[in-house]
Amino acid sequence: MAEKRIVTYDTTLRDGEQCEGITLSLEDKLAIVRRLDEFGIDIIEGGYPASNPKDLAFFREVDAMDLHHARIAAFGSTCRKEVAAADDEGLADLLASGAPVVTIVGKTWDAQVERALRTTLDENLRMIAESVAYLVAAGREVVFDAEHFFDGYKANASYALACVAAAVKAGAASVDLCETNGGALPFEVEEIVGAVRAAYPAARFGIHCHNDSGCAVANTLAAVRAGATQVQGTVNGIGERVGNADLLTVIADLELKMGCVTVGTDRLTQLTSLSQYVAELCNVSVSSHHPYSGASAFAHKGGLHASAIARFPEAYEHVSPAAVGNGARMLVSELAGKASLLQKALSLGFDLTAAGVDAQAVLDDIKNREARGFTYEVADGSLGLLLMRHVGTYQPAFTLESFRVIVDDREDTGALAKDALSEATVKIHVGEARFVATGESAGPVGALDNALRMAIVESYPQVAAMELTDYKVRLLDESQGTDAITRVTITATDGVDTWGTVGVSENVIEASWNALVDSLEYGLHCARVRAGQ
Amino acid sequence: MAEKRIVTYDTTLRDGEQCEGITLSLEDKLAIVRRLDEFGIDIIEGGYPASNPKDLAFFREVDAMDLHHARIAAFGSTCRKEVAAADDEGLADLLASGAPVVTIVGKTWDAQVERALRTTLDENLRMIAESVAYLVAAGREVVFDAEHFFDGYKANASYALACVAAAVKAGAASVDLCETNGGALPFEVEEIVGAVRAAYPAARFGIHCHNDSGCAVANTLAAVRAGATQVQGTVNGIGERVGNADLLTVIADLELKMGCVTVGTDRLTQLTSLSQYVAELCNVSVSSHHPYSGASAFAHKGGLHASAIARFPEAYEHVSPAAVGNGARMLVSELAGKASLLQKALSLGFDLTAAGVDAQAVLDDIKNREARGFTYEVADGSLGLLLMRHVGTYQPAFTLESFRVIVDDREDTGALAKDALSEATVKIHVGEARFVATGESAGPVGALDNALRMAIVESYPQVAAMELTDYKVRLLDESQGTDAITRVTITATDGVDTWGTVGVSENVIEASWNALVDSLEYGLHCARVRAGQ
Repeated sequence: MAEKRIVTYDTTLRDGEQCEGITLSLEDKLAIVRRLDEFGIDIIEGGYPASNPKDLAFFREVDAMDLHHARIAAFGSTCRKEVAAADDEGLADLLASGAPVVTIVGKTWDAQVERALRTTLDENLRMIAESVAYLVAAGREVVFDAEHFFDGYKANASYALACVAAAVKAGAASVDLCETNGGALPFEVEEIVGAVRAAYPAARFGIHCHNDSGCAVANTLAAVRAGATQVQGTVNGIGERVGNADLLTVIADLELKMGCVTVGTDRLTQLTSLSQYVAELCNVSVSSHHPYSGASAFAHKGGLHASAIARFPEAYEHVSPAAVGNGARMLVSELAGKASLLQKALSLGFDLTAAGVDAQAVLDDIKNREARGFTYEVADGSLGLLLMRHVGTYQPAFTLESFRVIVDDREDTGALAKDALSEATVKIHVGEARFVATGESAGPVGALDNALRMAIVESYPQVAAMELTDYKVRLLDESQGTDAITRVTITATDGVDTWGTVGVSENVIEASWNALVDSLEYGLHCARVRAGQ
Repeated sequence: MAEKRIVTYDTTLRDGEQCEGITLSLEDKLAIVRRLDEFGIDIIEGGYPASNPKDLAFFREVDAMDLHHARIAAFGSTCRKEVAAADDEGLADLLASGAPVVTIVGKTWDAQVERALRTTLDENLRMIAESVAYLVAAGREVVFDAEHFFDGYKANASYALACVAAAVKAGAASVDLCETNGGALPFEVEEIVGAVRAAYPAARFGIHCHNDSGCAVANTLAAVRAGATQVQGTVNGIGERVGNADLLTVIADLELKMGCVTVGTDRLTQLTSLSQYVAELCNVSVSSHHPYSGASAFAHKGGLHASAIARFPEAYEHVSPAAVGNGARMLVSELAGKASLLQKALSLGFDLTAAGVDAQAVLDDIKNREARGFTYEVADGSLGLLLMRHVGTYQPAFTLESFRVIVDDREDTGALAKDALSEATVKIHVGEARFVATGESAGPVGALDNALRMAIVESYPQVAAMELTDYKVRLLDESQGTDAITRVTITATDGVDTWGTVGVSENVIEASWNALVDSLEYGLHCARVRAGQ
């Protein structure tokens, strides 16, 4: 197949966040933008500026980031019926967002226009044309999302095409055909996209699919075969109902199987860690059976195959796991191999080779810990301490004698209590000195944090400058209910460096304690390094 | 499209059980056979009689079951190289299993024959032809699984076709083309199956796909379009690596979208419960985002859609949820309106209109709580209790006097401590009676759960039947670090009903307590409703 450039359009932060149970903080969204940009995504849809203050803040903040490659898109709708584009608040919000790309959704299914929007077919065409033209005149790159296009085309092809024509003539950079209710099958998508291409050979088209028939990825690929040049999707396919097309799977299929160019095969090796990273921030785990990035995606079992695999691996691996940064029979980790470990260690300031450390021993240590629930994807601080232990430079800043946390609550406080109080007492040793300190807070972890800082601040005044900026709790194997292993990840900063740490235990308090201790110890390490000690 | 009968072939018990972490007992396998038979599956592959005693026992037991419709298949390989079919132990085991259908896998990829099997291309053809003929002569219906057929065809079409010809001429009832490594895309599958059909128009072909490219369902449908008349797959798509084609999704797509007849539209309404049932026995949960059967498969949220759905449901539902025995769910959230609240309340058994409750007041209450961090999308139990408060039927099962949780830890336990212990003491009142109970557990929430159950079980023996099946913790506004609001969601079941509850507090222990209390109270409500009280 001839090499073909396909524009990648990520909507994780907008359509993906529609997914039941997923809420991304502003910090999460900015962190995801950073990783998507590094991965080489072309357009990142950030949200719906009209809808809420968090999205407004997002566009302000993202404007200040210097992205290598990606362009940010703001999402909204065409102007309202019987309102001129220039007077429409929604369009004004989109311009105010400052995003270089503006994506507006509009209806293309006649029945939807008449029954849901309750206006005339002509008025809907006016809304599309005028809105696109208005945004183009304001200097924006406009993507028109043709909502329900495939149902619309089946119901009334000429009207659906008229909507596309209105957007194209008004100057839309791309018309993205949306398979909104997710029910179409690949052969229908290929046929309809082909017909649209034939009608408007000069225009650029994209595709936006949902997975209700279990065919979102295939539908997206079918559209590309029929001439679509822009693919929309979300990381790991998160989205409402059964989700969107998984953009990462689409990208891997396009790059490795259809001779298309998207992020490029070099960046493609980030796929697995990106998938895991976004899942962490969304506080959901990637199914171990997820295509390409799942922990089991290249794992083999079954007497029938085992012997054959040894002699003929390509017979049982559709692509090389390394091509997508995954590994055969390996826990998913950005540290899948020695080379990447050595490189990662260097980036943290540890030259394992020069220190004569056996990289394999470190890898085994990491894999054992990952098997117990640790993850180092977002915990450079804990990884740094682990490396220091192997290099032999680790010195505990203090040792724990004991801690006790007490949470007291009185009377029936109803569904949202305010008067619970937590108290933590820690007893620690710094060298010969013993310190006992008690801290209070609304929550037990805050109380522990306060007590620990109080206990060590005399010995380590630098901790006064350190602050926790993010605290995440994740239950592994949640089906175990309250017995589940708890993973706590903490992000801390001292105003110069920022680092993440991880703690794991059956006990959420203890997992938090372990992450807290790593956080303070790594912070002290960073301070020493900066002081040239 | 003309109506077309497609034979359904389930391999959950054989290829599905290859899935990492899934082991089915003999009883599980027999129970699954019963349900697959009731659902109308045509052929149920039971296992590999040569491989283990459990499978041998399975074939004995299943022989004694009176199935309405399904035929049982035993799975194995062709005879070994340089062994006559009549002398092959594997084939003898297959006949000994007594299964009316025998499926044997054989190689069709020249490189596999030479490098993995390490024999000649002619000997492999002999193994296929002789094995099929031998089993047919013994009165069995024979399915030939053409392993790696698609890779084989791409590498050496004429040899791959020669393997098919050998099986067809020897009397195979169906030659099932296996996309063994899962890397093919739908357009390739459709083209290759079409070519095979053209070469052997009189033969019957089936398709067996894996999901490594994220296209297993689409590949299966593509094969049917090209003339395959038998579809293989597993319930929920379980299988090794990324799994097999999800047979249930394939069946729904064939029945509802491709004019094919499989189990028939009446039995199709069992799809969702079958999916959940098999997941239960496999001890994995169906993703809430699974096509057709997932809890969120027909759930809606999002300001863009909410109002339109009420007026025009078919615009956002690719099929009627009832067609597959699932239900539409309107997610209660800031984005939802009165209509969806009333509908949701009815689904929980509360007629707000009849009860004269002001829906707006309930919406405002929900809005306020959502602003404080609650979410009711996955907490029907807490929502039900909230509605009961508005309707005026809420009676607290007990009131809290106080609880105290103590978490103790001694010495520096390193990164993964095991010796932390939590102890919880609760003091509660049930009517006039006062109960004090203490519980212990590795974690504080487990300790609270144990203590609370102990305190109320005398008054409410029904709680003994309730168990927590899922426990999630989410930090809201995580940038607040350990001061962040904590949201805890709990899923519980009493074996009949399953419900979710939510608790919110700055204190993770208290948030958990609130979710626990709601969970037990709503469980007691469900028990009362079932008892007709």
